[in-house]
Amino acid sequence: MMKFILIPDSFKGTLSSEQICEIAKEKVEKHFPGAETACVPVADGGEGSVDAFLTALGGSKVSVTVKNPYFEDMESYYGLIHEGKTAVIEMASCAGLPLVEDRKNPKLTTTYGVGQLILAAAESGVEKIIVGLGGSSTNDGGCGAAAAVGIKFYDKDGKEFVPTGGTTADIAKIDLSGRAKVLDQVEIVTMCDIDNPMYGPTGASYIFGPQKGADEAMVEELDAGIKNLSRVIAEATGEDISQVPGTGAAGAMGAGMIAFFGSRLQMGIQTVLDTVNFDEMIKDADYIITGEGKLDSQSLRGKVVIGIAERAKKQNKNVIAVVGGADDSEIDKAYEMGVTAVFPINRLPQDFSISRHHSKENLGYTVDNILRLLAAK
Amino acid sequence: MMKFILIPDSFKGTLSSEQICEIAKEKVEKHFPGAETACVPVADGGEGSVDAFLTALGGSKVSVTVKNPYFEDMESYYGLIHEGKTAVIEMASCAGLPLVEDRKNPKLTTTYGVGQLILAAAESGVEKIIVGLGGSSTNDGGCGAAAAVGIKFYDKDGKEFVPTGGTTADIAKIDLSGRAKVLDQVEIVTMCDIDNPMYGPTGASYIFGPQKGADEAMVEELDAGIKNLSRVIAEATGEDISQVPGTGAAGAMGAGMIAFFGSRLQMGIQTVLDTVNFDEMIKDADYIITGEGKLDSQSLRGKVVIGIAERAKKQNKNVIAVVGGADDSEIDKAYEMGVTAVFPINRLPQDFSISRHHSKENLGYTVDNILRLLAAK
Repeated sequence: MMKFILIPDSFKGTLSSEQICEIAKEKVEKHFPGAETACVPVADGGEGSVDAFLTALGGSKVSVTVKNPYFEDMESYYGLIHEGKTAVIEMASCAGLPLVEDRKNPKLTTTYGVGQLILAAAESGVEKIIVGLGGSSTNDGGCGAAAAVGIKFYDKDGKEFVPTGGTTADIAKIDLSGRAKVLDQVEIVTMCDIDNPMYGPTGASYIFGPQKGADEAMVEELDAGIKNLSRVIAEATGEDISQVPGTGAAGAMGAGMIAFFGSRLQMGIQTVLDTVNFDEMIKDADYIITGEGKLDSQSLRGKVVIGIAERAKKQNKNVIAVVGGADDSEIDKAYEMGVTAVFPINRLPQDFSISRHHSKENLGYTVDNILRLLAAK
Repeated sequence: MMKFILIPDSFKGTLSSEQICEIAKEKVEKHFPGAETACVPVADGGEGSVDAFLTALGGSKVSVTVKNPYFEDMESYYGLIHEGKTAVIEMASCAGLPLVEDRKNPKLTTTYGVGQLILAAAESGVEKIIVGLGGSSTNDGGCGAAAAVGIKFYDKDGKEFVPTGGTTADIAKIDLSGRAKVLDQVEIVTMCDIDNPMYGPTGASYIFGPQKGADEAMVEELDAGIKNLSRVIAEATGEDISQVPGTGAAGAMGAGMIAFFGSRLQMGIQTVLDTVNFDEMIKDADYIITGEGKLDSQSLRGKVVIGIAERAKKQNKNVIAVVGGADDSEIDKAYEMGVTAVFPINRLPQDFSISRHHSKENLGYTVDNILRLLAAK
């Protein structure tokens, strides 16, 4: 019996990875009736990541009342997979930008709810927690989340407070000793695909502040605060993590995940592949169909298609990439790294402004024809 | 040993069928070293058709001094294939539009040279002559070609003359009796992909006159002339062929080929497939790679890809179509008619005005990836 693994990234702005899986699955069933298909919509840590893991592995969603970005109560959730042994949290579910809509202000917003989700998951008895960064409205360096699990922040007068983006500059001292003990029993992995440092011109505030509502003056203020945070973290932990790639992710939540939660930062695709036990999954697979919006030289640096191809290559498995577009410079390297063949979905020579409205049928058409070719003797 | 048949149409305006064959052949040799490849660049009867047949089958080119569109001597040629048993003539080689450049005038131009080529080929002892229509500068209904082989045209005063587009209206009588006897021994096939009638709003003059230099008044004059020709042809032969599809091709040369040369009109692709003995050629083939500029509902009416697919289907052979663009309406019919899979060459979502400049690398990329997939199967 044939086995297909469907494991695409989303095509940003046009198709979700779930949609791509669905379309591809329908085509596989059409051309290979009775074939086994495994669907793994690739989560990137942002909004929809919990659902993506649940689609891939099954499991359940647990509702928790936590604080939203403005310290107001809201219903959020985490996912339980691996028979309840692993929890999946997406930061966006309680600290996301869509939650603040017309109240965007990274000086005021908090990751407090994320800490509450982590604590709730840990208390439920999981062995591992996956935290997806991305899509945040915050710039608090994870201080809110830290406060939610018992870590204390003091200003220069010794007054305890919960820092937000506007007040990280006021932190004089951090006391890690009150951190919930239950967290010591849990492995925490953070999905993080960007490599920005905490502060400076390529740091959290300068690069991502503006999309969260910061003007030029506020960006400078936020950046100074995160710089201060990195200093007090170094004092509290003995380690300067400010230049670690990814610490600047999600309003420096990357730094907070390392410093306050003992987490490691990992590329999203690697986390997904580990979590779905990809190496085992593909052992008896005939074809792996993946895809991403654009395959280019950036893709070679650990994006979805290449991440998958590298693992598939070790088992000599075929990886077919369906893409929105493909640069041809350096593309030979993709083949070397394990990609079998690449098929762009552009059915007609049309500008993206037009073709983006036809992504669904174009993708279906392309997958259909790939499978037609595979089905032909 | 694997065997590939490479038999593409040209991508009009961007890639010749020869170029496509060359690119595809290089890719086959890369991914299937030692594989057998047969290259058949598809001729459409227009300029380059002789070379296309010679590329596909080998053979030689014979030079002949004949009349150009203005009755001036020029060096033209025909091709000899099938060990000299078949001649291939392209009308454009001595009556083509590029030959008249700034002297465009379909009232004055003649197909006389085409008749000379046919006669020369017949006298060389061939059994069959293929005449490709297309790209003509003429509107003489093939009267010039007829005169070159001994057919006589008389005006109302009984004066013999060689009609051109401007004087077909003056023909009062046609005498077929002087036609060169050598032509009786030869089968003549005319390649003709259009189905316009001799005259009227969809006839030769109205549809193709303007591109040959006719203004509105001249179009009417030419049309009246061809209508008169159809009348005197019916008188001379006993048959009214004016509404036969294709008689309006190449300035009504289609009609002349039937009436004066006893030829039948045939779709170009069918002529090519017969001539290269396609049915035999594919018997031991693994994959047939074809292509055309655009696969759409028009393609279903006997264009290249479908013409090939229909024959391949009878032998249950795989036909892969590489195309510049593919409509998805009615495309299921293409599969039913024998197309295995279709791959558009648009590597990036770009308008044709941009992508047309990248046709070569895009085609190479697409064929490369198709072959990569086949090699992995």
